[in-house]
Amino acid sequence: MIQICIIGSGNVAQHLIKAFSKSEKAEIVQVFSRKKESLTHLVDSDKIVTDLSDLKKADLYIISITDDAISEISKQLPFENQLVVHTSGTSSIDFLDSKNRKGVFYPLQTFSKAKPVDFSIIPICLEAENEADYHILETIAKSISNVVFPISSEQRKALHVSAVFVNNFTNHLYQMGQKICEEHNVPFEILKPLIFETAEKIKTLTPVEAQTGPAKRNDSITIEAHLNYLTDENQKNIYKLLTQSIQNNGKTL
Amino acid sequence: MIQICIIGSGNVAQHLIKAFSKSEKAEIVQVFSRKKESLTHLVDSDKIVTDLSDLKKADLYIISITDDAISEISKQLPFENQLVVHTSGTSSIDFLDSKNRKGVFYPLQTFSKAKPVDFSIIPICLEAENEADYHILETIAKSISNVVFPISSEQRKALHVSAVFVNNFTNHLYQMGQKICEEHNVPFEILKPLIFETAEKIKTLTPVEAQTGPAKRNDSITIEAHLNYLTDENQKNIYKLLTQSIQNNGKTL
Repeated sequence: MIQICIIGSGNVAQHLIKAFSKSEKAEIVQVFSRKKESLTHLVDSDKIVTDLSDLKKADLYIISITDDAISEISKQLPFENQLVVHTSGTSSIDFLDSKNRKGVFYPLQTFSKAKPVDFSIIPICLEAENEADYHILETIAKSISNVVFPISSEQRKALHVSAVFVNNFTNHLYQMGQKICEEHNVPFEILKPLIFETAEKIKTLTPVEAQTGPAKRNDSITIEAHLNYLTDENQKNIYKLLTQSIQNNGKTL
Repeated sequence: MIQICIIGSGNVAQHLIKAFSKSEKAEIVQVFSRKKESLTHLVDSDKIVTDLSDLKKADLYIISITDDAISEISKQLPFENQLVVHTSGTSSIDFLDSKNRKGVFYPLQTFSKAKPVDFSIIPICLEAENEADYHILETIAKSISNVVFPISSEQRKALHVSAVFVNNFTNHLYQMGQKICEEHNVPFEILKPLIFETAEKIKTLTPVEAQTGPAKRNDSITIEAHLNYLTDENQKNIYKLLTQSIQNNGKTL
């Protein structure tokens, strides 16, 4: 068993704790949390430490906290030459202090506390400084997920920006669709099958092949009608910019 | 059996023909197409007519053609006082000529010729001028789908604009994500589970509840880093506008 200490108690940390507790390769020996009570529903109370100096020896330390605290916490770790990774999509591997062996264990998914996730289909992006450490990360990653990739810090930047487009921005478009429906007494439920099919389609088609709609077919009559119909300036601006972008096939002209 | 003539041979027309051919309530008696060969893979050749004057008597005529041709074709129909509907999300019921009884049969989904669809989960939005006609539409709609709604022309406008946001624009964001990945040698495959989960989430959460990411948490360091990372002006503009919109919760300030 690979012995793991998890540092953090947020969303990602909690989903990792749940996933590792089912893994046959990983054993959580301790979890660090500033507030013990935020984890008592998941971890035995005697495994939760609130002081970094109480951390025991382990094969792997996973820092899963906000990006801006990673550097500081990694400096405060009271040991050297251990394998220490973070779970951030945005932070370089070099945000970790060099007194330990560094790595990244980045599960690429959108986590909500309220919704359970199936970790087996979540891609885990790994980075390490040497092959032996990569192997440790790979062993535990493969024990919870079927989709494991080596991804450099440079590649991870691209992945994280892309994730903002396909997840954060997409979800915001759902919100706009819901708002337009509700303003006109149409149940948003009607749109949900369309939303699922939009995602489903890219299993078999590229996004360019899957593109449909008035912008794609240069249907200026419908585009004008939609712009006249929308009353909110923000909605209009987003409609215009994305319509132009589809017409230019995503390129700046 | 409700006898149906379909007028049109495009994407929606072809998916309807396939769906009705399995229905126990509907019988396709004829299909009108300017080019016979575009439908011979789906319909017996002797049921395809290329001249409107050859249309037989039926209980229902479904016009499934481009929006700008609906009005003209409905005028050219060589009969009166029959039930004639169109399948458009954008056109009012009044685009149909008043010499016949008018209605709308709008399946709200994104259809690609290349991809088969499960019609049973596609919402069908119905409109008719009187209850008897609505009942005919409802009978055949329910014979191919489990999700049937009465939707007025006014409501349909809202639905169609919303559909552009949640489908056309969302798919374009997938395209942008793919482009950013490819530019940096990251397989787009890694992002697909995130795309599916983004859609899945709104089965149990509202879009506002599901929102995550740097814009939502006002993480200006990550937002700045992403904007510096993007080199394409169009990508930058879309990033900025959607980030602002998330920060303002979709409202114009």
